[in-house]
Amino acid sequence: MICALAGGVGAARLLRGLVRVVPPQDLTAVVNTGDDTVLHGLHISPDIDTVCYTLAGWGDDTRGWGLAGETWTVMTALEALGGQAWFRLGDRDLATHLYRTQRISEGAPLSEVTTELSRQLGTGIEVLPMSDDPVHTRLELAADGREVAFQEYFVRLRHDEPVNAVHFEGADTAAPAPGVTAAIESAEVVVICPSNPVVSIGPILAVPEVSPAVAARRDTVVAISPIVAGKALKGPADRLLLELGEEPSVLGVARRYVEVCGTLVIDEADAGYADTVRSLGMRCVVAPTVMRTATDAAVLGKVVLDAGRPPAGRR
Amino acid sequence: MICALAGGVGAARLLRGLVRVVPPQDLTAVVNTGDDTVLHGLHISPDIDTVCYTLAGWGDDTRGWGLAGETWTVMTALEALGGQAWFRLGDRDLATHLYRTQRISEGAPLSEVTTELSRQLGTGIEVLPMSDDPVHTRLELAADGREVAFQEYFVRLRHDEPVNAVHFEGADTAAPAPGVTAAIESAEVVVICPSNPVVSIGPILAVPEVSPAVAARRDTVVAISPIVAGKALKGPADRLLLELGEEPSVLGVARRYVEVCGTLVIDEADAGYADTVRSLGMRCVVAPTVMRTATDAAVLGKVVLDAGRPPAGRR
Repeated sequence: MICALAGGVGAARLLRGLVRVVPPQDLTAVVNTGDDTVLHGLHISPDIDTVCYTLAGWGDDTRGWGLAGETWTVMTALEALGGQAWFRLGDRDLATHLYRTQRISEGAPLSEVTTELSRQLGTGIEVLPMSDDPVHTRLELAADGREVAFQEYFVRLRHDEPVNAVHFEGADTAAPAPGVTAAIESAEVVVICPSNPVVSIGPILAVPEVSPAVAARRDTVVAISPIVAGKALKGPADRLLLELGEEPSVLGVARRYVEVCGTLVIDEADAGYADTVRSLGMRCVVAPTVMRTATDAAVLGKVVLDAGRPPAGRR
Repeated sequence: MICALAGGVGAARLLRGLVRVVPPQDLTAVVNTGDDTVLHGLHISPDIDTVCYTLAGWGDDTRGWGLAGETWTVMTALEALGGQAWFRLGDRDLATHLYRTQRISEGAPLSEVTTELSRQLGTGIEVLPMSDDPVHTRLELAADGREVAFQEYFVRLRHDEPVNAVHFEGADTAAPAPGVTAAIESAEVVVICPSNPVVSIGPILAVPEVSPAVAARRDTVVAISPIVAGKALKGPADRLLLELGEEPSVLGVARRYVEVCGTLVIDEADAGYADTVRSLGMRCVVAPTVMRTATDAAVLGKVVLDAGRPPAGRR
């Protein structure tokens, strides 16, 4: 069994590679829900949806979120009514949120609903939210100290505002969703996907029982740096690391993960950092990490699994 | 000023006639919210929407609910996910529910949101919910005494189940929405639209301050019977009256309204009832009441206004 801690787009791409090198049913994705939001009364789980849509083959690869061939009838009508349309929800995507919200209103935990959606969409893998308890990623803006919700920062402000601090509201008392700890404990390899270490993987590790479970498997934990040559492949990971006083490089990523992760996979562009990463007490594997195609993703998936599987003598 | 107590389709048709014989800005519709429901997390106000869509010219006249030229992308996708699709929500209709739910979640009362929607849709009239407080129409099924919500009875069971009793949960403590009492008090004519007397007009009159306000204007209150020749023009009004031990005819309607209403307009098909209605202490006007066209509705609107306007010597 393989267990992958996952954020959104980068994680979804890697997972799509992993299912080419392991049977899909052997793969469990534990997905960040710190970005979850309620808008128009609807419970939206952006990372879960990105993972599910991508694995099911419905994802929009160009846009990186939502569904391919999506239509926008509802949003267009909502805009005409003067409604909030800054968070774009496609018509078919809305069906997912309607389904999730209805089931939660009936008392179903998010994990149960996620299993249902994952099966109906046809991901082939097991998708688990990190927790059934609400955790809200909040960012303190440097400009005025105001704290904003993740989606306001990420979508409305286009992650273009310096940040002082990041909080995971509710994480302290959140329990891992059913199956999460077991998936980590029983995995042959635990993968930390190339997602934003601060706001995608951060919330997962902030759930109290998750970090120790991952740390206990440190030797078989493999992370892929989402930062290549000092730049995030997508999103604000580089800026966030810098703004939080860390180095916006694979080294910053390594320092974030060193307690829980034995191996860091870095891109060939960052080969020069390999020895410094190793000096932190991690194994370091240099490989092409930019996934332009499904084949790139499968090749990277193989590298990651090999790096985490015993004998693990590389250093 | 004209104030109309309104349910769904029948009311919307009459209102469309009234705006041809009075300036739209002189017309206030006080609309039933006992049918309001939360589905998929969305606050749905079916009667308000029917009134707004019809007055704005967006209504689907053939189907009698929803928007003309509607698309069903979200519902189709929701069905594919195994979601609840028995309550059909079109794509553009959904935008209304998203807007309403978001505004209510921000703390706006339903009346404020309804004013916004009415203006954005372009109804031209003032549309008020009967109350900003939740009132839930519930029906006790004769078969097993089980109590069901209005939409379950009306849509899911297709109002095809005998009913023992009807309750308006929350009505006891509901206050009229801002403007409702004033609209009734200041109206030249108060119109009770040809809506279901039990489940459409019933909830409005069940709001404690509304009945006395209407009764105080009894001489200028004109109701139109929604029952013609013993049959409801639409929906289960005839069956409900019968099941509740009342007569499924204009006489049953007259008895329902006699305390609050001075004049009942009945269809020519029911002319034979006129004297019996009068014997209850109401004026009775016989006129064509079936609104097949907008012109029919305008003619009926004129009849209704004439019947309510002083000098009111007809009996």
